[in-house]
Amino acid sequence: MLLSQVCKEVGIELNGDDREISGIHTLSEAKESELSFFNSEKYKDGLALTKAAAVLIESKYADLLPKTTIALITDEPYLKLALASKLFAYKLQTNEEKPKIGTNCDISSRATFGTSVILGNNVVIMAGAYIGDNVTIGDNTVVNPNVTIYHHSVIGANCILHSGTVIGSDGFGFAHTRMGEHIKIYQNGNVVIEDDVEIGANCAIDRAVFGSTIVKKGSKLDNLIQIAHNCEIGAYSILTSQVGLAGSTVLGRNVVMGGQSASAGHLKIGDFAQIAGMSGVTKSLESGKIYGGFPAVEQKEWLRNQAKLNLLLKSKK
Amino acid sequence: MLLSQVCKEVGIELNGDDREISGIHTLSEAKESELSFFNSEKYKDGLALTKAAAVLIESKYADLLPKTTIALITDEPYLKLALASKLFAYKLQTNEEKPKIGTNCDISSRATFGTSVILGNNVVIMAGAYIGDNVTIGDNTVVNPNVTIYHHSVIGANCILHSGTVIGSDGFGFAHTRMGEHIKIYQNGNVVIEDDVEIGANCAIDRAVFGSTIVKKGSKLDNLIQIAHNCEIGAYSILTSQVGLAGSTVLGRNVVMGGQSASAGHLKIGDFAQIAGMSGVTKSLESGKIYGGFPAVEQKEWLRNQAKLNLLLKSKK
Amino acid sequence: MLLSQVCKEVGIELNGDDREISGIHTLSEAKESELSFFNSEKYKDGLALTKAAAVLIESKYADLLPKTTIALITDEPYLKLALASKLFAYKLQTNEEKPKIGTNCDISSRATFGTSVILGNNVVIMAGAYIGDNVTIGDNTVVNPNVTIYHHSVIGANCILHSGTVIGSDGFGFAHTRMGEHIKIYQNGNVVIEDDVEIGANCAIDRAVFGSTIVKKGSKLDNLIQIAHNCEIGAYSILTSQVGLAGSTVLGRNVVMGGQSASAGHLKIGDFAQIAGMSGVTKSLESGKIYGGFPAVEQKEWLRNQAKLNLLLKSKK
Repeated sequence: MLLSQVCKEVGIELNGDDREISGIHTLSEAKESELSFFNSEKYKDGLALTKAAAVLIESKYADLLPKTTIALITDEPYLKLALASKLFAYKLQTNEEKPKIGTNCDISSRATFGTSVILGNNVVIMAGAYIGDNVTIGDNTVVNPNVTIYHHSVIGANCILHSGTVIGSDGFGFAHTRMGEHIKIYQNGNVVIEDDVEIGANCAIDRAVFGSTIVKKGSKLDNLIQIAHNCEIGAYSILTSQVGLAGSTVLGRNVVMGGQSASAGHLKIGDFAQIAGMSGVTKSLESGKIYGGFPAVEQKEWLRNQAKLNLLLKSKK
Repeated sequence: MLLSQVCKEVGIELNGDDREISGIHTLSEAKESELSFFNSEKYKDGLALTKAAAVLIESKYADLLPKTTIALITDEPYLKLALASKLFAYKLQTNEEKPKIGTNCDISSRATFGTSVILGNNVVIMAGAYIGDNVTIGDNTVVNPNVTIYHHSVIGANCILHSGTVIGSDGFGFAHTRMGEHIKIYQNGNVVIEDDVEIGANCAIDRAVFGSTIVKKGSKLDNLIQIAHNCEIGAYSILTSQVGLAGSTVLGRNVVMGGQSASAGHLKIGDFAQIAGMSGVTKSLESGKIYGGFPAVEQKEWLRNQAKLNLLLKSKK
Repeated sequence: MLLSQVCKEVGIELNGDDREISGIHTLSEAKESELSFFNSEKYKDGLALTKAAAVLIESKYADLLPKTTIALITDEPYLKLALASKLFAYKLQTNEEKPKIGTNCDISSRATFGTSVILGNNVVIMAGAYIGDNVTIGDNTVVNPNVTIYHHSVIGANCILHSGTVIGSDGFGFAHTRMGEHIKIYQNGNVVIEDDVEIGANCAIDRAVFGSTIVKKGSKLDNLIQIAHNCEIGAYSILTSQVGLAGSTVLGRNVVMGGQSASAGHLKIGDFAQIAGMSGVTKSLESGKIYGGFPAVEQKEWLRNQAKLNLLLKSKK
């Protein structure tokens, strides 16, 4: 789509040469053909380094952009981003097409495939599974009944996906108008599940807004787990049932999270960290330690505090 | 069904004229053709005002009913209600019928429609979706794969329903016998989703026991959320992942609930109230304030208390 | 499968006579034709009493086995168990077969049945439901759209299963290598749902690793509930929405668990115990009492402590 058309659709004046825009991405990841946006001081250093064709930006920051990048001036860059994201959204359609399959697969005639799906060898796809457009699934992977895999998801080899699990549904992202309405930021990224991953029943793993939500090699997820957009689950992590991760949180390798524990967004959980059941993580956590409580602290501190508190309360009438 | 027949089925003597009964409702909402019940002192003032044809009631309260309403005397009005509710339950059937559709819809042949379904224009219904009897869906709404919409649900325009989500499953209501058994109260209400609502993956929004569970215009729900029967979600509210609402709780407009937060039933959450992640609401909340903790208090109070508590525990050996 | 072949596949030397092995079970439950394992001092007393054909065991404990049982010596019995479990795993296939059905059933042509399914009388199976191999379903049971029932599950009479619910998905069990990889313990048990049980939308009830996960007569489960492998839910229990139970926890009869409450694994919850919403159970609980908080204590103690704590914090500046 031409940049001039994007500008017209979102209501912004184009001051600069027109060009073809292929998509939207963050300041640091945008290619020369992509549109980007700036709505947080936190990413100010990224302005000078961006390769984006054009950036939605408030006028006071426009001078910080490289000369090759067009400033699209607006008071509400995030809202304009939301409007622009719709222009690049993947159009959901009911078209079906026979997938390209490897040898020795067992595919139910009651599974549904979108277009351009590729399956490896020895893949099992059970009834009621929906495999969206452009999905690829690796060798030996088992997709149980009534699993849903949205378009452009990448599923590795030797994976097991249990029933009711949804891979690649839209991340939860909205810009807000001054009237308090919420404008959808279309989630144009995808989900990548690496090899040897098992995912339990009725989980929800959202696609990224840009780039990928990733579950790395050998991780095991129990049932009813929420993985928000742009999270990364490190290799060989263990997430037990009803865990919830907010957006963009990154787990290291061999992280363990207990039942119903959760993490706020945009945090880093170090390798081999363990998080006790029902605890709530509000800050990034170091590697190799055990955490618990809400807000989560080191588990031994939490236990010590619980003991002290119990003593204290016993001493009061 | 004739009132005499209802009485016979539930084991109650009819003292009064027979008449046709069209359904069951609360004291205040029951029409002249409906049966009602009285099992809580809280609603005593409603007795004199009811228009119900007949009311299941203990004998000591019977005199408070209007003369036009027949008292159906029983020691266990709630249990009798449960038995009566079954008589008016909608009979689930596998009958399929082509829906009445608008223009430019994209409907998968692998979606299933009950009888008397009506779809607007530009509606997309993906494979594996089940749309129950008498459901209506507004213009431009997208129903992703493997969504289930139970009978008589009303879905607005411009909505997006993500995979695995269930709209209109039975609310969780039972009367209890003296032996500790649970007798189902059939949930004869429905769910109404207004325009511009997005609901994430694997949510459960229960139908009302009477009347409607309602999600109002422009609200956005993340994944794995529980909305119990007879809740009302105010316009433009934001519910993040794994939130749970117990029955009959009413949210105002632009309420925000953080991940894994929850509310007890029969509460009112004021407009623009914000509830922090993992907090548990046990009382009604005022408008425009931020709440947190369990039991939830104002977030600034919770933070202050946490700080005080930490200081106190540090001072103890 | 011959024991010699099992040994070869998992990399263990067989010192003893070869024999046919029919499956794997715990020390106490294994039959003469079954393989077992010993990996926890806790079960040491069970060694002398086992009837197992052979036991995966460290050399230092081997002498405690009966003479009729072959010791399969290994430093990593749990890891070898995981490898062996795969040999006895049920092979998931897409084969469909008309179920054996009773009278007056209403079965959607869009429901899918594996092989050797048996349905009682007056059963309703809606579109998108998947009923796995060797499942049996009792009279009058209703299976709503998009329910998934894995192979060998046993569903009683008069049950209602709501949409999106998954019965019999794999329990969450893994052995761990020294490199931190997780090796699946195939879950070769099943799920048994007794009569008069209702299960809400989008629940996950995992099959047992050995034996059965059981939901007893008359229990009612709300939406989005997690029941891990080998749990037992006592008769007439009430589990409200988003409850989570870790593995092998056993509830007595008429237990009530509030919304988002949870229990750690391997605990016993006494008859008629009540557990308040959002509380977390970390120890076994007595019958007939009310519990709350995290870690859960008696509710009256939790309330008293909350009151004391509030007073204490108010007194601090």
